[in-house]
Amino acid sequence: MRMEDTICALSTAPGMGAIAVIRLSGKETYPVINRIFRGYSKRHQLEGSKEYQSVLGSIYDEDQLVDEVMLTLFKGPQSYTGEDVIEIACHGSTYIQERILRLLNKEGIRLADPGEYTLRAFINGKMDLSQAEAVADLISSENQASHQIALQHLRGGISKEIRELRAELIDFVSLIELELDFSEEDVEFADRSKFLELLHRIQAVLNSLISSYDTGNAIKSGVPVAIVGAPNAGKSTLLNTLLKDDKAIVTEIAGTTRDAIEDEIQINGISYRFIDTAGIRETDDMVESIGIRRTYEKVEQSDLVLFLFAADRLQEPSGWQALKEEYQSIKEKAQDRKFLFLINKQEMLPTLRTEEEQYLNSLKPLFLSAKAKEGIQELQDKIGSFYRWGDLAASQNIITNVRHLDALKKSLDQVQVVMDNLEAGISGDLLSIDIRTALSELGSIIGEVDVDKDILGNIFGKFCIGK
Amino acid sequence: MRMEDTICALSTAPGMGAIAVIRLSGKETYPVINRIFRGYSKRHQLEGSKEYQSVLGSIYDEDQLVDEVMLTLFKGPQSYTGEDVIEIACHGSTYIQERILRLLNKEGIRLADPGEYTLRAFINGKMDLSQAEAVADLISSENQASHQIALQHLRGGISKEIRELRAELIDFVSLIELELDFSEEDVEFADRSKFLELLHRIQAVLNSLISSYDTGNAIKSGVPVAIVGAPNAGKSTLLNTLLKDDKAIVTEIAGTTRDAIEDEIQINGISYRFIDTAGIRETDDMVESIGIRRTYEKVEQSDLVLFLFAADRLQEPSGWQALKEEYQSIKEKAQDRKFLFLINKQEMLPTLRTEEEQYLNSLKPLFLSAKAKEGIQELQDKIGSFYRWGDLAASQNIITNVRHLDALKKSLDQVQVVMDNLEAGISGDLLSIDIRTALSELGSIIGEVDVDKDILGNIFGKFCIGK
Repeated sequence: MRMEDTICALSTAPGMGAIAVIRLSGKETYPVINRIFRGYSKRHQLEGSKEYQSVLGSIYDEDQLVDEVMLTLFKGPQSYTGEDVIEIACHGSTYIQERILRLLNKEGIRLADPGEYTLRAFINGKMDLSQAEAVADLISSENQASHQIALQHLRGGISKEIRELRAELIDFVSLIELELDFSEEDVEFADRSKFLELLHRIQAVLNSLISSYDTGNAIKSGVPVAIVGAPNAGKSTLLNTLLKDDKAIVTEIAGTTRDAIEDEIQINGISYRFIDTAGIRETDDMVESIGIRRTYEKVEQSDLVLFLFAADRLQEPSGWQALKEEYQSIKEKAQDRKFLFLINKQEMLPTLRTEEEQYLNSLKPLFLSAKAKEGIQELQDKIGSFYRWGDLAASQNIITNVRHLDALKKSLDQVQVVMDNLEAGISGDLLSIDIRTALSELGSIIGEVDVDKDILGNIFGKFCIGK
Repeated sequence: MRMEDTICALSTAPGMGAIAVIRLSGKETYPVINRIFRGYSKRHQLEGSKEYQSVLGSIYDEDQLVDEVMLTLFKGPQSYTGEDVIEIACHGSTYIQERILRLLNKEGIRLADPGEYTLRAFINGKMDLSQAEAVADLISSENQASHQIALQHLRGGISKEIRELRAELIDFVSLIELELDFSEEDVEFADRSKFLELLHRIQAVLNSLISSYDTGNAIKSGVPVAIVGAPNAGKSTLLNTLLKDDKAIVTEIAGTTRDAIEDEIQINGISYRFIDTAGIRETDDMVESIGIRRTYEKVEQSDLVLFLFAADRLQEPSGWQALKEEYQSIKEKAQDRKFLFLINKQEMLPTLRTEEEQYLNSLKPLFLSAKAKEGIQELQDKIGSFYRWGDLAASQNIITNVRHLDALKKSLDQVQVVMDNLEAGISGDLLSIDIRTALSELGSIIGEVDVDKDILGNIFGKFCIGK
């Protein structure tokens, strides 16, 4: 991984801006800057300047002025990476960015790999692995919920929880291994019933973390939503009403181009992505069999199904038959997905007979009119109630990372093995091995055990350049 | 212009990056940051920190953590704008950028208009108007030449020259106006012959600056190049060869997306833009009359015309006739544009008779083969020789700004008026008015006279946000 190299990269977003920031890290940082930078005045010299200080001056490529810049100085280990770091704030033309990076290359500083600054921070003990992952999550956060959870992880919320579990397990395994040293005397330092108690507690924590993943993943990636229903149910109108309502809320902040994500809305800080909106927006004159197949595909990709039915169809007896069939086939396909039954065009609902009313109520419908924008707020509230991250986030840690999920599941399995073996009265040395496997899985989340190089590469390879 | 407001804006390029920088300027900068920022430790507090210092800490919206950030502090007047300035380096998610800007808005800091920081720098006397314009040029510079000239202007090259001319003119006008006070005594404080000498010198300087505009504009905007010629002359092949050759030179710097500008090449730091490449790349089966009209349009838009003729056509007598006609009509249309006559497919040139050779040489052709990539370097050298900004930039200031060109031309006209009137023996008070008009035109370039608000709005409105 060439940790000895000094590295540089553009840390701000690519493209033209008023300013751009190029970050250097490594032991050649100061010597190289010393060669190419001339401070404006006595006050603005590299030499004699303290860390966390900014100095103004010019960067030269031999005798040619490249740009007037501001440097901010950090000395290792009091820096992001733990190494010597300098940040160059230059004018934000893409030409200048490129020119400075090229000059740094010429001076022997290589371009950083994606995530390499954070990798170095991890390796130098400035943060643990789950915190490093949280940095990437924070940078890519696009809504309030994912942002808050990334911040929680960055601040070490989940790391602390896992570290505590591990500490208790390590205490136990130490006692068990101590017994092995005294095996001839047949003593038990480790209280088996207390150990079982601990294992139950660990099980509970792991289960709670694992079950937080569904919400966590929904928060991080957005909840995929399928709007399904027969032609003319009003799918397209509902979609547009939901989208328009959301866009109206978005405050326009000039200068930030938070790309308006098409076909996505935010409710209580969570993103909901609508699936196959192109299909919805097409005219509905497709052959019915294709319609059904598409509907099923959409339901399969979704986490939340909105089944829409037009109230006017209930004016005919055949409509009731159709409702029954559509509802059953979609509900069956939806399995245990979150599911909402929506009756659209509510103003066209006929007067219901008692048994009709009873049947309809048994399906727990939400009445609305997508066109008249009635019942939309209720629909949003209902959707929002499925994913209440706020309560959850306040009471426990939420995991959002599939690598963590994997490690937690493996730990849980291993804890089960330990419990089974404990009850079967297995010998201490075998027990110790099982516990150590669980410890290792837990440790991999925060990087306290040696993590495979490929895994590190995979984690940091997903970062953007310059972090 | 609401100069009393405190302003904020994203100063780095829009979009997601590892970090983003938000800049604040104005008297509420410190009070607001004091309210929303909590330093990490005793060392990282706003209070007690000096200018040019960085402090680490967190930004809170009421009790909710928004981000962990680094502030860099500047106290007016030692700042870019001359006001109190703080730069917030936050994590580069678009969500966070927006969140912080919204929080600042809530605290009463409004979003900056484009160029408003630089406008304030100008108004507070941190730079003159032509330097402010150079900031915008620097940020948008895309090649070496435009970058160097913007830097030259930013460093006050042209300002100095104009300021000196004005100072001399002001000396003279003062003397002339002094005469008016003593008008009854009929004295002449201002030596008329010396004055004429000065006016000649000013004329020379203005002429030289005005004539530098063509090169300056070519440097700033790129030279528009027309490749013209009959179907099958090899226009498309030549274009591709030139483009491919250029792209091969471009060093790939990961993380910067200097958008590969399609259909543009760089020679000696100057950009050359090819006109109507879509037309070139189309199949050439269009009706001939349309072809001719298109050719003429392209020539009209261009500054440099490359007329391409396929050597194999010269194997037939009719080819010679065609060459004569095409050459004449295009050369005529090209008028005094820069013009190169290229004979493509040189390997297919027949053996020439003496008079043929003489005729051909009289047209000063460059022989090449676009397909075999022969003669391409010579062509590039030839093109490069038309616009030698390097020599020019070393020996004099180059103007690139049409506003400056305008003011210089008006000054020149006014100087001529003064000279004519001087020779006609006009009275001192009228002379003084003419000189003051010239002074005002010159002063408008550097903003030393009151510049119209609309003009200021026009200048700074072209800036990107955050500068």
